[in-house]
Amino acid sequence: MLPFESDYNNGAHPELLRRLVETNSQTSLTYGFDQWSQSAREKIRVAADAPNADVYFLTGGTQTNMTVIDGCLQPYEAVVSVETGHINIHEAGAVEFTGHKVIALPHHNGKMSGLELDAFMRQFTDDDSREHLAQPGMVYITFPTEFGTIYSKDEIEDIYGICQRYGLKLFIDGARLGYGMMAEGVNISLPWLSRHCDVFYIGGTKVGALCGEAVVFPRGNAPKHFFTTIKRHGALSAKGRTIGVQFDALFTDNLYFEISKHAIKMAMRLKAILQSKGYQFFIDSPTNQQFVVISNDRIKQLAEQVEFTVWEPYAADAKVCRFVTSWATTDEQLNELEKWV
Amino acid sequence: MLPFESDYNNGAHPELLRRLVETNSQTSLTYGFDQWSQSAREKIRVAADAPNADVYFLTGGTQTNMTVIDGCLQPYEAVVSVETGHINIHEAGAVEFTGHKVIALPHHNGKMSGLELDAFMRQFTDDDSREHLAQPGMVYITFPTEFGTIYSKDEIEDIYGICQRYGLKLFIDGARLGYGMMAEGVNISLPWLSRHCDVFYIGGTKVGALCGEAVVFPRGNAPKHFFTTIKRHGALSAKGRTIGVQFDALFTDNLYFEISKHAIKMAMRLKAILQSKGYQFFIDSPTNQQFVVISNDRIKQLAEQVEFTVWEPYAADAKVCRFVTSWATTDEQLNELEKWV
Amino acid sequence: MLPFESDYNNGAHPELLRRLVETNSQTSLTYGFDQWSQSAREKIRVAADAPNADVYFLTGGTQTNMTVIDGCLQPYEAVVSVETGHINIHEAGAVEFTGHKVIALPHHNGKMSGLELDAFMRQFTDDDSREHLAQPGMVYITFPTEFGTIYSKDEIEDIYGICQRYGLKLFIDGARLGYGMMAEGVNISLPWLSRHCDVFYIGGTKVGALCGEAVVFPRGNAPKHFFTTIKRHGALSAKGRTIGVQFDALFTDNLYFEISKHAIKMAMRLKAILQSKGYQFFIDSPTNQQFVVISNDRIKQLAEQVEFTVWEPYAADAKVCRFVTSWATTDEQLNELEKWV
Amino acid sequence: MLPFESDYNNGAHPELLRRLVETNSQTSLTYGFDQWSQSAREKIRVAADAPNADVYFLTGGTQTNMTVIDGCLQPYEAVVSVETGHINIHEAGAVEFTGHKVIALPHHNGKMSGLELDAFMRQFTDDDSREHLAQPGMVYITFPTEFGTIYSKDEIEDIYGICQRYGLKLFIDGARLGYGMMAEGVNISLPWLSRHCDVFYIGGTKVGALCGEAVVFPRGNAPKHFFTTIKRHGALSAKGRTIGVQFDALFTDNLYFEISKHAIKMAMRLKAILQSKGYQFFIDSPTNQQFVVISNDRIKQLAEQVEFTVWEPYAADAKVCRFVTSWATTDEQLNELEKWV
Repeated sequence: MLPFESDYNNGAHPELLRRLVETNSQTSLTYGFDQWSQSAREKIRVAADAPNADVYFLTGGTQTNMTVIDGCLQPYEAVVSVETGHINIHEAGAVEFTGHKVIALPHHNGKMSGLELDAFMRQFTDDDSREHLAQPGMVYITFPTEFGTIYSKDEIEDIYGICQRYGLKLFIDGARLGYGMMAEGVNISLPWLSRHCDVFYIGGTKVGALCGEAVVFPRGNAPKHFFTTIKRHGALSAKGRTIGVQFDALFTDNLYFEISKHAIKMAMRLKAILQSKGYQFFIDSPTNQQFVVISNDRIKQLAEQVEFTVWEPYAADAKVCRFVTSWATTDEQLNELEKWV
Repeated sequence: MLPFESDYNNGAHPELLRRLVETNSQTSLTYGFDQWSQSAREKIRVAADAPNADVYFLTGGTQTNMTVIDGCLQPYEAVVSVETGHINIHEAGAVEFTGHKVIALPHHNGKMSGLELDAFMRQFTDDDSREHLAQPGMVYITFPTEFGTIYSKDEIEDIYGICQRYGLKLFIDGARLGYGMMAEGVNISLPWLSRHCDVFYIGGTKVGALCGEAVVFPRGNAPKHFFTTIKRHGALSAKGRTIGVQFDALFTDNLYFEISKHAIKMAMRLKAILQSKGYQFFIDSPTNQQFVVISNDRIKQLAEQVEFTVWEPYAADAKVCRFVTSWATTDEQLNELEKWV
Repeated sequence: MLPFESDYNNGAHPELLRRLVETNSQTSLTYGFDQWSQSAREKIRVAADAPNADVYFLTGGTQTNMTVIDGCLQPYEAVVSVETGHINIHEAGAVEFTGHKVIALPHHNGKMSGLELDAFMRQFTDDDSREHLAQPGMVYITFPTEFGTIYSKDEIEDIYGICQRYGLKLFIDGARLGYGMMAEGVNISLPWLSRHCDVFYIGGTKVGALCGEAVVFPRGNAPKHFFTTIKRHGALSAKGRTIGVQFDALFTDNLYFEISKHAIKMAMRLKAILQSKGYQFFIDSPTNQQFVVISNDRIKQLAEQVEFTVWEPYAADAKVCRFVTSWATTDEQLNELEKWV
Repeated sequence: MLPFESDYNNGAHPELLRRLVETNSQTSLTYGFDQWSQSAREKIRVAADAPNADVYFLTGGTQTNMTVIDGCLQPYEAVVSVETGHINIHEAGAVEFTGHKVIALPHHNGKMSGLELDAFMRQFTDDDSREHLAQPGMVYITFPTEFGTIYSKDEIEDIYGICQRYGLKLFIDGARLGYGMMAEGVNISLPWLSRHCDVFYIGGTKVGALCGEAVVFPRGNAPKHFFTTIKRHGALSAKGRTIGVQFDALFTDNLYFEISKHAIKMAMRLKAILQSKGYQFFIDSPTNQQFVVISNDRIKQLAEQVEFTVWEPYAADAKVCRFVTSWATTDEQLNELEKWV
């Protein structure tokens, strides 16, 4: 079977495994105080040009989202997301489990509109009954989005400006951050991102690691007792080194972005293949997730040779399907795919 | 000032106060085991033709909604509401505070569409990733709705049928139940409602009481340890008699419905007045809440003599405004209003 | 049956009912913005000599405890109580429902020891793993305690000093505040209390009201958005006037303390009766709750004429029993009781 | 520095790493549906003689405890633990974060007394106000305990019998399960344990893995939608294979127990060394954690060469200290330790 259904259907990038093996026999401090976690933190600070950044390593995406959101909000506050935001759908109500409402705005190709965010906040601020409502405290966006699309610099600046005007924190979910930054035409770097939000995370699980996400508070602005908050969410790794070693490798010699670049190259070839075969694109994505519309009959056939995800209904006889590349995708797999699609 | 901004801007119906005074010097059991609460429960069972009903008295609407929803759902379950549902907006995230997601469907004049509920549940059931989603466990509707509109028998039967097919509980928020049942042309009675949902409540605060809502599980189907659940939500009245005496009075000689009928009569006169003055109605409501569109300038003028609620923006220079009658509204107040609107 | 089992087995003090009747026909603002709530707040500020105090009216004790504790704590913080504290036992886990641990210290006749609190905090502060623990954020004490005992001025000063040294808030549960302040030999006044804690509440339900507790943040130090926090806990009264009118009456002409004084007089007579009959006292209480040890056989007999509470096991053949007076207790009831005990 | 402060200060057992490397280039299903997780589940079922067992892989101990406890309890239920239980102290209030009270019983060398559990449940059941209390729903014990001690078969049978009599679930925290089962004189096996509780977990993080704990519901008795519950707690691994491969290796050729046996051998030599040097033992532990009392001065000196944990105060001038061995401890490390202690 050709594996195009996700970017976490593989093991780790070999270099990460090599480093895990190489460091294995050493002992270390626990709970993230080990030498590799410390080194990884420092490398991330350098890469992000954020010398005072607080960096925490967590295990997975949903865990990171719920811990960051709950950790940054006051109990009476809500987080604003587009309706298709990962936290609003595919996390089994994990944010609500922590007691916070997710306020959903419309999405536009997966993205939040600054205009609509501003209008929402203006209406909220003007509402005489606003003390009876959950108080917006944070905006959550994904980079790239769940549909593989990318905010432009202007769009993020706009949203961040609105956040600052209304006293909202901006949190950027970077589960696929590398794939976003390496997309063609994108000129958003880690240092730029660090200056345009309050907290973001650098996804590892989908970009080369066995597990692990790096949460970055770029200006040393982690909430008080965030370590305890992580523990309280069951998100503190006893053997912090497991993630630390991997991020240390990912941020050595620009590995994180190099392997992301490869995934994008593969994605663009995938896109070209699908285009050449006449597939109807559901959305124009510059990143490693590609969405096409396929008839129900064809889905059945194709599923015999290719793993992909049926994303959502499109019409009575067709569905939106997702094909994903990763750092591990090979030209051989694409050659093979070309035969079947 | 003419008080048309809500149906809880008044004291209690005099008969309820009279009974509170009359019973005041007697001692009683506490926590709802007093003689009046017991009597009120029995009268509600008779009125609802539900001899096995479990009846609990809580203090207010938000408290009742969050306690019933959290008490009936498993922790991993969500409640489905229309986007304008009270629990989704005006309760400060109280349902999410208890850990549950509110899944919002579109509204149609405040009402949920059975077709859309069914489509949502079909898509959920067909979704291969549904175990990654909050599990729908309950449908929440309001009778009458936040816009004063009323579900027909067919509509409730339809929704309840869908609930039963998909294993969802149906909860009907009756904060203004009396005003709904007494509206012209409505033929939904307490016994009928008791047979067409899993739990509902009879609103007291807005229909003649100082405070108090009566939760009814019509078939003795209260969740296990619901008393403890009430306590755990801070919703157990030590002096249960305070609410018990009032509901005992409300369900003596059909008082609850008689005073509701009066509010509807006043509302229909209010509607006629507003129509005769050429106001544009935002929605056609048969109950005690009337919504009209008023220009911003006119709102300012009117607010000098009349209390009403600016509900939501309508256009740049106009807003939707709400006028409300209650059991306490008088013909004199309407005569006066007629002069000013 | 002679009602000595609680101080909430009665109706309201007649003066409160009279005021409810007298004000009933007036309309008012809702949610606690009515004229009587405003007046009651002002009277409490005067009585407490705390001109900047924030005052909120809630409905009952458990609700007040959970809302104040959750509202004042950060999510990762815990509240410290004695093991017999009301929040640690008789509130069905309501504080934990809001996500906070209750850390239980030993009690001494129902009271917390300053020495033990200090030792606990010193050990916590010295613990290298303290970031893995729930962070103490508040101390909760009851005045009077669950056993009817009273902290001295020195004891409260001591505890408050420790709280300030360690950055803990001090919350005093005053469900029976009046009965404590009016006890013989007690010289703790509302103004003094207001200067020796961060938040306390004045219990109404047990001291003359149908329902209602007044939360006081003496220095205008209510947490941000506490109104929204109240709403989110289902604790906001739509008809705030119901409680406001009652507290306005309780704080007119010193009524709250006058009726408390009566309860204490009755309690002291009760105590004398029990002593003269040779009952073994479990604890020496100067307030309206009296605890004696009674044999199982005698309990059965007595329960045929008198209502009292079996509190906890004492020995195989005896139990601790509680007898309670209130503002409503009469000499006639005590005369009658004398015959039976 | 000699590393005796924990059993998670090391990397993975080399065989686990070898398998991670060996399987790395294969693609797989995600979220625990991969071939290795499936194989590991089957091997655990065989090892536990529990053919119908439900097995779930989570990442760490606190996460596992909070997910299992919250997943098994109804919202109004509490978990009973000894006061020294890990969930009651060292998890930052994670169980309370999920809304449940931890009811603490006294400990005896870290263990719960069946007699005291029974007495507690009898008193609860006899308490007329029990509906006002958090309802005990589960008993939590650790095997081995936080003090390295071990329950006997009789003790577990006794506790489980009490649980069954009172309708409580029994959950056994096996973060160090292997070290307990391999202790000298212990004859408790996986199959026996599977028949004497409702759910337990097999700790990986402390017994050879980079991360990972295996939750076992021995009779296929996982709560409904437990997968969704795991997701909702942020505890679902996208790359489930990371843990699956490791547990597959741990349960091949009895590796889990072989390496546990080694840790015990090392612990017994450690114990002998400490005894020969005249150390005062705080507790008699047959497992890989050894607790001795050391003077404050000596602690300072020793800490220059040896890593160990200062556990808790013992006297003004001495503290309880913990020394821990693991599967990775070597004779050379003990030789070295012998020089310094």
